[in-house]
Amino acid sequence: MQRSLETIFSELRDYCYETSLLEAAAACLEWDERTGLPLAAGAYRAEQMTLLAGMVHERKTAKEFEQLLQDAGELSAATDNSPTSAAVRRLLKEHDRNQKLPIELVKATSKATVLGQQAWEKARQADDWKLFEPHLKEIYNLRRQEAEILAGDGHLYDALLDQYEEGAKSEQLTQTFAALRDALVPLVNAMSQSSTRPDGQSFRIPIPVEYQRNVSHWVAAAVGYDFERGRLDETSHPFCTTLGPHDCRILTRYHEDYFATSFYGTLHEAGHGIYEQGLPTEWYGLAPGQAAGLGFHESQSRLWENFVGRSQEFWRWALHEVDQRIGGAWKGRTAETVYRDANLVQPSLIRVEADEVTYNLHIMIRFEIEQALLSGDLPISDAPDAWNSKYQEYLGITPPTHRDGILQDVHWSAGLVGYFPTYTLGNIFAAQLMESAADAIGDIPKLLERGEFQPLMTWLRKHVHEAGACYVSEDLVRRVTGKPTSSEPLIKYLKSKLSPIYDL
Amino acid sequence: MQRSLETIFSELRDYCYETSLLEAAAACLEWDERTGLPLAAGAYRAEQMTLLAGMVHERKTAKEFEQLLQDAGELSAATDNSPTSAAVRRLLKEHDRNQKLPIELVKATSKATVLGQQAWEKARQADDWKLFEPHLKEIYNLRRQEAEILAGDGHLYDALLDQYEEGAKSEQLTQTFAALRDALVPLVNAMSQSSTRPDGQSFRIPIPVEYQRNVSHWVAAAVGYDFERGRLDETSHPFCTTLGPHDCRILTRYHEDYFATSFYGTLHEAGHGIYEQGLPTEWYGLAPGQAAGLGFHESQSRLWENFVGRSQEFWRWALHEVDQRIGGAWKGRTAETVYRDANLVQPSLIRVEADEVTYNLHIMIRFEIEQALLSGDLPISDAPDAWNSKYQEYLGITPPTHRDGILQDVHWSAGLVGYFPTYTLGNIFAAQLMESAADAIGDIPKLLERGEFQPLMTWLRKHVHEAGACYVSEDLVRRVTGKPTSSEPLIKYLKSKLSPIYDL
Repeated sequence: MQRSLETIFSELRDYCYETSLLEAAAACLEWDERTGLPLAAGAYRAEQMTLLAGMVHERKTAKEFEQLLQDAGELSAATDNSPTSAAVRRLLKEHDRNQKLPIELVKATSKATVLGQQAWEKARQADDWKLFEPHLKEIYNLRRQEAEILAGDGHLYDALLDQYEEGAKSEQLTQTFAALRDALVPLVNAMSQSSTRPDGQSFRIPIPVEYQRNVSHWVAAAVGYDFERGRLDETSHPFCTTLGPHDCRILTRYHEDYFATSFYGTLHEAGHGIYEQGLPTEWYGLAPGQAAGLGFHESQSRLWENFVGRSQEFWRWALHEVDQRIGGAWKGRTAETVYRDANLVQPSLIRVEADEVTYNLHIMIRFEIEQALLSGDLPISDAPDAWNSKYQEYLGITPPTHRDGILQDVHWSAGLVGYFPTYTLGNIFAAQLMESAADAIGDIPKLLERGEFQPLMTWLRKHVHEAGACYVSEDLVRRVTGKPTSSEPLIKYLKSKLSPIYDL
Repeated sequence: MQRSLETIFSELRDYCYETSLLEAAAACLEWDERTGLPLAAGAYRAEQMTLLAGMVHERKTAKEFEQLLQDAGELSAATDNSPTSAAVRRLLKEHDRNQKLPIELVKATSKATVLGQQAWEKARQADDWKLFEPHLKEIYNLRRQEAEILAGDGHLYDALLDQYEEGAKSEQLTQTFAALRDALVPLVNAMSQSSTRPDGQSFRIPIPVEYQRNVSHWVAAAVGYDFERGRLDETSHPFCTTLGPHDCRILTRYHEDYFATSFYGTLHEAGHGIYEQGLPTEWYGLAPGQAAGLGFHESQSRLWENFVGRSQEFWRWALHEVDQRIGGAWKGRTAETVYRDANLVQPSLIRVEADEVTYNLHIMIRFEIEQALLSGDLPISDAPDAWNSKYQEYLGITPPTHRDGILQDVHWSAGLVGYFPTYTLGNIFAAQLMESAADAIGDIPKLLERGEFQPLMTWLRKHVHEAGACYVSEDLVRRVTGKPTSSEPLIKYLKSKLSPIYDL
């Protein structure tokens, strides 16, 4: 007797759910690794991660699964964005990828990246590039092998990019980024020469970490991050990770002398967390329950961090609330001062501490270097020099140490090549979404001034979060905003906010 | 071609190591569950734990494993305490037990204890014994069936006791405990009537949790717990758990109004942790890399908590160190006062809050009752009366509620019958070990007075920790101390410490 497609899909769904249990267990081990794993426990943890990755890989290449997938194959219509079709389509795509990749390569990559991250930690602490170089070389070798297997007729780089931003092409991104760069470089120059620059002092007053922790928990909850379905912890390189349908965790870090790190870092991660918490839980583990790519993920973090958290109206509401929680350290300051200080734009060395404008230049540098490293045009050993000279070219500064230069990011040590451009894509999407949200909701600034974040979140839930990954990002941005990916709204937003502050 | 025994054993060892990777992953998930798992994430976590438990069970009953075990069988000589023999012997014993127990009984017990713990929670909250009684009856029925299968010619109770304390016999324990009881009951009576009783106020001064946290981290490190191979966190029911050969974590809890909870709780768990950290890492996952039973485990926690941490010399050294870390809350107090307050002995209702002396009487009551319940001499319905009358007899007090009486412990609801006596066995072993350590090291009090804990730890490492579970506890205590299990050293230690304090 033939089973109905419904029955087949239900079995497929159950199978994937069980796989997700293991994947989420691995996510828990990783979260644990990054929140205080005992120093000596790294090697054993790496073995555990390798074992679990192998088990997940086995489940994803098992005969039973292949049969289910094959039987369900006809559910996957390329033009149908129903959750069922999207789920099957994504599984078929992943399966195709898994079949092509030899298990040895998968295991080698998993091990290299665990060890790579440990080496990166040490190299960064010691400011010693040589400690990291062989690991990075191995990681790029492995990822190049992967790209060669997957790329087909396309670019090697696009084969990796596709894993973070489905359907994106480096050629198109290069064009979109060029338009943005052409607008931002002169803008940054003009601001540098402005006589009305804020001095950013509001965020330079030392604030005890305990107070900052209190603020972080408060502000994450205030904008809508749900602590019954998540938690906020401390780590050296902040991130957001999902450990189950009701367990999305965010992490931040605290610098006593620079309050902005934890404040905006927390808002950023809370934005990611709010997105994850808004995905349809009944689809957990399948595409309709997952984010529509990293660009959209980043759009959600940037939206809360910058478009909300660096707005004038936000500070009119937040000033008193924050001041109470930092022991009155801002006594006498106006919302206008803090707002201006939150919008200090200046070329700097560290991506994660960069302002909303220059951030995109940090990304473009990485985007260019990782393309050259992957293609082999740039040898790994030359990467630090390339890094430093591009910083000079785009931002007019040269890192005095590798710690503040090429060793600052965890990404490459974790094997994430093709990931960086999604950050700027996020800024671009966020600006496009805010334009559409304003058309739909009306006066967003007025809502922010009253601390009413719910209408904006509800709009995002309905139009972005609930769609999961039923659409690739280029289709989703068109669907939600009616327009293709474009850097124009971002340029317009930045100019209109910053011109009055810098008297341009 | 026949493989050598060495080859077979090496394969067996690799197999078990991989099983340990999964078991330790489950331990990590459990640690995470008990250190702030988001409220809504419990159900998914339970599914993950069930999946991992099933995978571990599969590995332990797999044909491949059974074959290896059979091939390696001749390595297991009953009289040989080499690591290899001990490892194989333990694996064979576990496997034999798994084979004898019908899967229906295992599943029924698992279900009854899950339901039993839920019912116990409710019964305790409602202070309603009747809610729990049918569950306890079912649990004892199932464990009796298990004991009947496993006991052979021996006592039913001993078949369960053996799972927590290999080779221990209730008849012998009864004698050892009787000697202890005959000494402690009059001692407690005499102390109750003493006019020089301490009032315990040193530990009743409110101390901010932040300060207590600082003290806990300091004191655990001071006595030798290695933070590079572990960490200390907060939880509602403190425990110690091992997540890998270099990852043994301890947990404590903080009560602002009762400093002793975190201080002695931390020392206790640090003792467990020091033991785990001293086990041979190259044998991780096999008997020679595991503790020699629960009695020895408890001996290590009690040794640091009580024999060290409640000694006069310890406080001479620690007073100033602690006072500095609690913001001078002990200003004006002498080491003698704090020492006396740390040795307040008085009959009380709750086992986990009991002092070093009466604790053993709490254990004896449970030991006697659980034997009678298992044999059927005491019907389940009569257990509360038996409990209350024994409290009156041994401690001179009657619980006013079942919540503070028979419903206080989780153990029986979790199926743990035969577990309680290992607590008092721990105290007994600790006293025996301290006598032998003093013979070997010399003046231990003088070392403690200088905060020199290393010689004692080194001695324990060499004689206890490094032996792993190559010996059952009765053999290990004889091997280390030259004497059989005996309560005399414990009695002697308690009398000689407490007589001066209580002017007996």
